[in-house]
Amino acid sequence: MILHSKPDKSDWKAILKRPVMEAASLEPTVLNILNEVSRNGDAAVRRFSLMFDKTSIDQFEVSEDEINMAGSSIPEALKKAIHLAASNIGSFHKKQSLPKEVIETMPGVHCWRRSVPIEKVGLYIPGGSAPLFSTILMLGIPATIAGCKEIILCSPPTTQGNLHPAILYTARLAGVNRIFRIGGVQAIAAMAYGTLQVPQVYKIFGPGNQYVTCAKQLVQKSGTAIDMPAGPSELAVYADEKANPVFVAADLLSQAEHGPDSQVLLVCVSPDTAHKIKREIDQQVELLERKRVAKAALSNSKIILVKDEEQAMELLNEYAPEHLILACENATSLAEQVINAGSVFLGHFSPESAGDYASGTNHVLPTNGYAKSYSGISVDSFMKTITFQRLSREGLMNIGHSVELMAAAEGMQAHARAVQVRLD
Amino acid sequence: MILHSKPDKSDWKAILKRPVMEAASLEPTVLNILNEVSRNGDAAVRRFSLMFDKTSIDQFEVSEDEINMAGSSIPEALKKAIHLAASNIGSFHKKQSLPKEVIETMPGVHCWRRSVPIEKVGLYIPGGSAPLFSTILMLGIPATIAGCKEIILCSPPTTQGNLHPAILYTARLAGVNRIFRIGGVQAIAAMAYGTLQVPQVYKIFGPGNQYVTCAKQLVQKSGTAIDMPAGPSELAVYADEKANPVFVAADLLSQAEHGPDSQVLLVCVSPDTAHKIKREIDQQVELLERKRVAKAALSNSKIILVKDEEQAMELLNEYAPEHLILACENATSLAEQVINAGSVFLGHFSPESAGDYASGTNHVLPTNGYAKSYSGISVDSFMKTITFQRLSREGLMNIGHSVELMAAAEGMQAHARAVQVRLD
Repeated sequence: MILHSKPDKSDWKAILKRPVMEAASLEPTVLNILNEVSRNGDAAVRRFSLMFDKTSIDQFEVSEDEINMAGSSIPEALKKAIHLAASNIGSFHKKQSLPKEVIETMPGVHCWRRSVPIEKVGLYIPGGSAPLFSTILMLGIPATIAGCKEIILCSPPTTQGNLHPAILYTARLAGVNRIFRIGGVQAIAAMAYGTLQVPQVYKIFGPGNQYVTCAKQLVQKSGTAIDMPAGPSELAVYADEKANPVFVAADLLSQAEHGPDSQVLLVCVSPDTAHKIKREIDQQVELLERKRVAKAALSNSKIILVKDEEQAMELLNEYAPEHLILACENATSLAEQVINAGSVFLGHFSPESAGDYASGTNHVLPTNGYAKSYSGISVDSFMKTITFQRLSREGLMNIGHSVELMAAAEGMQAHARAVQVRLD
Repeated sequence: MILHSKPDKSDWKAILKRPVMEAASLEPTVLNILNEVSRNGDAAVRRFSLMFDKTSIDQFEVSEDEINMAGSSIPEALKKAIHLAASNIGSFHKKQSLPKEVIETMPGVHCWRRSVPIEKVGLYIPGGSAPLFSTILMLGIPATIAGCKEIILCSPPTTQGNLHPAILYTARLAGVNRIFRIGGVQAIAAMAYGTLQVPQVYKIFGPGNQYVTCAKQLVQKSGTAIDMPAGPSELAVYADEKANPVFVAADLLSQAEHGPDSQVLLVCVSPDTAHKIKREIDQQVELLERKRVAKAALSNSKIILVKDEEQAMELLNEYAPEHLILACENATSLAEQVINAGSVFLGHFSPESAGDYASGTNHVLPTNGYAKSYSGISVDSFMKTITFQRLSREGLMNIGHSVELMAAAEGMQAHARAVQVRLD
């Protein structure tokens, strides 16, 4: 980890800069796959699955039987853990919708909003060495609570053409309707454009590598909504002198093991605290199975010493971390000062991994500084609001003259006429 | 208008297809301007202003004096109208935020969300023959209610280097902090990257031509959030036999006058009703100042006859119009069946122009079918939510074992360790 001791404020921007992801160079490759799937549907999906996932698949959809069987190959203890997590995620997400309220802005002018689920949504779950079933809970449960009618899931198959049972089991539990063994850019394309086998969706959610991210950004330009731009996962920790170095080191390492491009940031006022945590990291990292990955991530990571707590919060708000742990005595009051972060963990017994899996909050969060303008996933992400208005004759009379004057001043005569013909 | 009489459902997609906006061909031009401003700041903005707006400007920011003077050149009646609209927009938008609620998902596990304003936002208001000050109300008022700290506005200057007083007056009223006389792609670039004179913002809002839209999509890919993808404005009307043909024709024309690419759709069960409305349109269009524009828009527009009300709603939900007028007896109950639309106007005295200006609802709405997944602008658009959690030792014990099992199953050993070190 690189130590910056009381850097000048003018250097913050440079110190906090994330590594740039060069997506533009991937665009031609990704665009080609998107176009092929758009034109040739399932045949193209099949061809790319053979090319990238090394498996030849006729029927992309996983059968009911296969889904129903999945549970039998998952240890009971893990099933119980998944159910507990699902229950907490359900409790937390259930409470997030806005009540309908009709507002009479003037006598006879009634306006209201109604939240409506997005009818068709697609979830993408990446492949890799282990099945990321926890993300299925984080996307599927809010989609189900929102009331989306069609919730489909795509995930890359093994070379035998299968999906991991934990993926199937969790997807069913979370309320996913249909599951497809398709990965990568071809999965994003199939969901964005629809094929004979895969239904078109209106919004695509979920993490992925840089090809998947690029594909999501490209289909967004042509009309399919996406959850948010994805980047490498991040954790910032603010630790005061009461922080337990063993805990903080373990938290930083839990982030560092995600990938060599993970971002880890430690902010302290006390050099002594920073030093103790650093020493703990050096010891604990050796105990990890994924220590090579963690060490790579740590080599890009930073310890920043600041002059006081106020400056710590200012710096952290400027960084806008995906995850922020406030490992300090006054965590709850300090939390009020957080304005840019995805998810915040308060005190000494709230490790990031609690929120990653089972506390109930969502773990699909804005990375790369996007917490300045984006929220993490919630039930709202699976809904949209429609506004309604009903004016009586009296209501139209109350605002009609203003509408006419404003429309005329904007050169919109026909807009004014639509009022006039009704009031004449 | 083109009449489709009881088209087969398999033809709906083709009939409802919007004209494709070919944005890809603009990208190199737009990207070049973005890059120039990113590299050369104000000097590049100045150069493009001279090139596109034909005006040479040193200080882009409009002075306090100029803003304070603006009111004196606006007729009192128009000012009153603007204030009435602002008051209604304020009343409607004020009520939209979610209360904070701490949820104990398990004993000792407290989770909550907090809505936080996006600190810095930029509003873009296009130029043209008339000042679109109503859009300033629609963006500035929710931004102010949200509590955004820096609300800046860019709009293209006249060849004399000025902005219209109605723009300045409305911007001040709506709570805009700083106003810049910059238009087009160079304005989007200045707000996305920041220059010496223009502060960088985190999210950019507002309509614009296809160059501006393309610029917004490109800066979105590199990290600046945008409100939504913009397209030509649209109106669909469902008219039953009780609908007043004079009113409906005036509504359709109020949309058609927006631009030659505006979309207008009339859906009826009764051929007689459709015929009467069509005849009214032909008569009323001749009365309009902008009749050339309206006629061009009408030439692409459609009347669709369907077999019954149910099919009408199905077709309209498939189209997902920006604006939808239900000009029918049972408008309020029918409104419950709307699932894809931006803003809906019920009954015979709710013209679209009411919502465009003064009823209180927002007029920045999803076009081009995006109402299937996007909401119109609200206070939420200027905020993001952060999740917080605080676990006690007991809380961590209650979920700790589940976290460990799930993390292990996902191959995330360090995630499990972050729990273990705390519970050991």
